[in-house]
Amino acid sequence: MSLKKITQHYQQISHFSHAQAMLGWDAASNMPSGGNQARSEALAELARHIHQLSTAPQLEEWFTEAGNENLTATEQAILRECRRQWQLATVIPEDLVRAKSLAGSACEHAWRTQRQENDWPGFENNWKTVVELSREEAQIRAEANQCSPYDAMLQLYEPGTSTASLDTLFGDTKQWLPDLINQVIEQQQADSVLIPAGPFPASQQKSLGMEVMKRLQFNFDHGRLDESVHPFCGGVPTDVRITTRYDESDFTQALMGIIHETGHARYEQGLPEQLAGVPAGEARSMGIHESQSLFFEMQLGRHPAFIQSISSLAAEMLESQGNPAFTEDNLQKLYTRVNKGFIRVDADELTYPAHVILRYEIERDLMNGVIKHTDVPDLWDQKMQSYLGLTTRDNYKNGCMQDIHWTDGSFGYFPSYTLGAMYAAQFMAAMKKTIDVDTAIRSGDLSPVFNWLSDNIWSKGSLLTTDELVKQATGETLNAQHFQDHLRNRYL
Amino acid sequence: MSLKKITQHYQQISHFSHAQAMLGWDAASNMPSGGNQARSEALAELARHIHQLSTAPQLEEWFTEAGNENLTATEQAILRECRRQWQLATVIPEDLVRAKSLAGSACEHAWRTQRQENDWPGFENNWKTVVELSREEAQIRAEANQCSPYDAMLQLYEPGTSTASLDTLFGDTKQWLPDLINQVIEQQQADSVLIPAGPFPASQQKSLGMEVMKRLQFNFDHGRLDESVHPFCGGVPTDVRITTRYDESDFTQALMGIIHETGHARYEQGLPEQLAGVPAGEARSMGIHESQSLFFEMQLGRHPAFIQSISSLAAEMLESQGNPAFTEDNLQKLYTRVNKGFIRVDADELTYPAHVILRYEIERDLMNGVIKHTDVPDLWDQKMQSYLGLTTRDNYKNGCMQDIHWTDGSFGYFPSYTLGAMYAAQFMAAMKKTIDVDTAIRSGDLSPVFNWLSDNIWSKGSLLTTDELVKQATGETLNAQHFQDHLRNRYL
Repeated sequence: MSLKKITQHYQQISHFSHAQAMLGWDAASNMPSGGNQARSEALAELARHIHQLSTAPQLEEWFTEAGNENLTATEQAILRECRRQWQLATVIPEDLVRAKSLAGSACEHAWRTQRQENDWPGFENNWKTVVELSREEAQIRAEANQCSPYDAMLQLYEPGTSTASLDTLFGDTKQWLPDLINQVIEQQQADSVLIPAGPFPASQQKSLGMEVMKRLQFNFDHGRLDESVHPFCGGVPTDVRITTRYDESDFTQALMGIIHETGHARYEQGLPEQLAGVPAGEARSMGIHESQSLFFEMQLGRHPAFIQSISSLAAEMLESQGNPAFTEDNLQKLYTRVNKGFIRVDADELTYPAHVILRYEIERDLMNGVIKHTDVPDLWDQKMQSYLGLTTRDNYKNGCMQDIHWTDGSFGYFPSYTLGAMYAAQFMAAMKKTIDVDTAIRSGDLSPVFNWLSDNIWSKGSLLTTDELVKQATGETLNAQHFQDHLRNRYL
Repeated sequence: MSLKKITQHYQQISHFSHAQAMLGWDAASNMPSGGNQARSEALAELARHIHQLSTAPQLEEWFTEAGNENLTATEQAILRECRRQWQLATVIPEDLVRAKSLAGSACEHAWRTQRQENDWPGFENNWKTVVELSREEAQIRAEANQCSPYDAMLQLYEPGTSTASLDTLFGDTKQWLPDLINQVIEQQQADSVLIPAGPFPASQQKSLGMEVMKRLQFNFDHGRLDESVHPFCGGVPTDVRITTRYDESDFTQALMGIIHETGHARYEQGLPEQLAGVPAGEARSMGIHESQSLFFEMQLGRHPAFIQSISSLAAEMLESQGNPAFTEDNLQKLYTRVNKGFIRVDADELTYPAHVILRYEIERDLMNGVIKHTDVPDLWDQKMQSYLGLTTRDNYKNGCMQDIHWTDGSFGYFPSYTLGAMYAAQFMAAMKKTIDVDTAIRSGDLSPVFNWLSDNIWSKGSLLTTDELVKQATGETLNAQHFQDHLRNRYL
C-alpha cells in the first residue's frame, strides 16, 4: 500500500528532524562558542539530507497511487498533509534554496552588529539579495499555486489563508485599534503602578517558573525548562524543550515568558501520538501555535484570578512577602499596562497588533513587487506615525531593522502573531459557553480548560484544515470580533 | 582526485556522527524519561544512515584509485585510516549487524535489573545469543584478516595489537602483580586514613571540579562539564562534553572522575584540526585514549605535588579548612589506598590490572571457542581466587555480571584499560627525560607537560600506527616495565 510507504518515508524524515531540533536547542542553550563551526556544518548537512528526503522523486508516484486507494478520513488527511509538504519543498529549485539560505545566513549574521550600529546602508547591501531571492521564490510558488506572490509565501506558515482575508481582517482592526489604544492610555494615566524591585536571583525565578509550569500541567516527563538568549519552544512532542532568560532586576518578563512558552509546549505535548512522525500529526499552523501560547499568556496568564494565584506564589518564592508591588491589584496593572513603543517584542497585548499590521502591509507589497526594499524605512516611519504616533526617521535599529524575520527572508510569518491572538480570544469565548473558566482558574485546577484545548485543538494535529478546525471548535471560522470584545472588556 | 572525494565522504559522515554524539550526550545528561522512545528511534536511524554511508559501494573504487595517486605521508595516512574503517564496517553483513544490535540492546536492557537480582539464569538466556552472534562476527572478521577470532575483535578497539603480544604482556604482569598487591596491603595496614565527612553540596563540588579543569587547561570555549549517572567523555573535538556524578557524602570520587574525563577531553580537544572529520584525525585507539585519562588521573592526579595543590583548594572550596582529612598526607593516602574488591570500576590503580587480565583471558577463550559462555561464572571465580583471593561463587552480580561491556557484545575492549595504564606510565617516564615534571606540577603551570602530550600524542591523531606513535614519543614500543616501576615507586 502506497500510503504505508509514504508514512514510513515521513517517519524516517522525522528522525532526522528530531536530531535537527535537538541540535538547534543545544546550540541555543548549551553549546560553548567554539562549538559553532562544527555544529553549523552538522546542521547544514542535516538540512540538506532532510531536503533530499522531502523531495524524493518516488513520492510523486506514491501520492498518485495512494490517491486511488480506499482511504479513511484520517488516511486522507495524512496523504493531504504529506503532499502539501512535498509540494512546498519540491517547487523551489535546489539552487535557489541554497542561495537563499546562504544569503539569509550572511544577512542575519551581519545584522546582529549592524542593528546595534543603526547601519542601514550596510544592512541594505546584504538585504537586497535576500529580498530578491525571496521574491524569486514567491514568484515560483505563486505560479505553481495560481495566486499572488505574497499569498504563496503565506502558505508556508498559514496554509489556507490569503491576502484578501488578511486585508479585511487587519483593515477592520485598523479602524478601531488606534482609538482604543489612545482611550486606554488616557484612562491608565490615573493609575499608579509599582515596579517590583530586585534583585530576584535566577535560581528563585527558575523555581517559580517551574512551579507555574506544574500548575499549567506541563509534563516534565516529556520536556524541560532551560535558558537561552532568545526564549523559544523547541525539541520534539515527546521531549519539548522550552527556554527563557532571567533578568535579575525584573522577574515579570521571564515569568510571563515561561507561561507563553508553556502554551506552545502543551500544544506539542498534546499532539496525536498515533500520528507521530507524519505531517498530519504536527501543529496546524504558526497562527494556531501562537494561539496556544497567547491563550496561556494573555487569556489565562493575565486573567485576574490567575494573577491572583501567581501574585502570592511569586511573593513567597521570591521572598517578597509583604512587598506592595506583589499585590494582585498591582501585578494586574503591571501586566496590562499599555504603552506605545518602537519594539514589537516588548509590546503589550493592545499595541502588538499595530506592529504586526504595519509589517504585514509592508511585506505584502514588497513580495508583490508594489514597493522596493529601499522604500521600507520611509513606509515604516509613516505607518508608525499613523498607527502609534511615533516616528522612526533615521532610527533604523528601532524601526525596520529590529526583527530577525526579514533578515533571512521569512516573509509571510508576521501575520501569525495577530492571527494567534485572535484565535485565542475566539477559543476562550467558545470555551466559556460550556466551561466556567473563571471558577476553574480560581480553583487552581485548570483541567477543564486544558481538556477543551486538548479535545478541540491539540489532539487534532493537522487532521483538519485551519478553517475546519476553528469551525468545529467554536462554531464559526475566524471572527475577529471576539478579539475586539476581549480587549474592550479587559482594558476599558 | 579520488582522495578528495574520499575525504569529503568521510566529512559528510562526521556531520551525522556529530548529531549522534550530541544526542547520546543529551540522552545521558538532559533527556526526560518520556523522551526515550523517540530518541532511540532517531539514534537508530542515524546509526543506520551512518552505516550506509560507511559501506558505500563507490568507496572501494575510490580507495583503489587513490592508492595509485601520488600521495604525501599525511594523505597516505588519511587513505589508510579511511580504508581501515571501511573494511571494519563492510566485512559484516547488515543482517548480522542488526541482529547483534537488537540482541545486545535486549540483553543490556534486561541486565540492568537482572544484575541487581543476581539472576544468572535470566541473563544467560539472553546472553547466549549475544555471545553466539559475537562469535559469528569474530569468525567473519578473522577470515577476512587471516587471524584468530579474538585477534579480529581486538582490531575494533586496538588496531595492531594481538593476542600474542597481550599474552606476553599480561602473562608477565601476572608474575609480579599479586605479590606486589599483597605486599602493599600489608604495608598499608599500619596507616590510618581519615575519610572526609560530608555533606559536600553538589554545587560546591562542581565549582571545585571546574577549577581543577581550568588548572588542567580544559578549554571551556570548546567543551562543558555536566552530570550523568555513568560519567563519560562525549561530544566532538571542538565541543567536548564530559560528565560526572556527585555523591554529597564523598567528594573524592567525582573530583578524580573529573580529572580522568578531563584527560580524555584534552586528547579530543588537541586532535589535529586540519584533519577534522576524517578518521586519520581521530584518536588513535581506545588504549591510547585511556592512556590520556589515566595520565591525568594516575600520573598527574595522584602525584604528591598535585595532591598537595588540590588538597588546599578542596578544603577552601568545600568549606573544610582545618579539617584533618583534607591534609595533603591524608588525601595522598586516601587516593593510593589499595584494597582487593569485587568491582572493577571501584578498583584502585594497583588491583585494576588483575580485573582486566581476568576478563581478557575469559573473553579471549570465549571468542576463540575454547570455552562456552556457561563456563564463565566458574572461570571467573577461579581467577578471582587466584589473582585477588576472593571467591565469586554464586555471586554473579559482583562477578561476571558486573560490567556492561559483554552485555552488548563489546568483546575485545577490556585490554584497553590496562594498555592505557601502561602507556601512561611509559609516557611519563619518557617525558621526565626532557621535562622537570615535579617542578612543573609544583609551580601550578602544567604547560610543559601538556605541550609534550600535545606534540607527541594529541596532535598526531591517527596519522601513525600505535607502535609508531609510541616509538616516536618514547623511543620504544610498549614496554610494561615502566608501569611496574611506577607502581613500585608509588606504592612501596
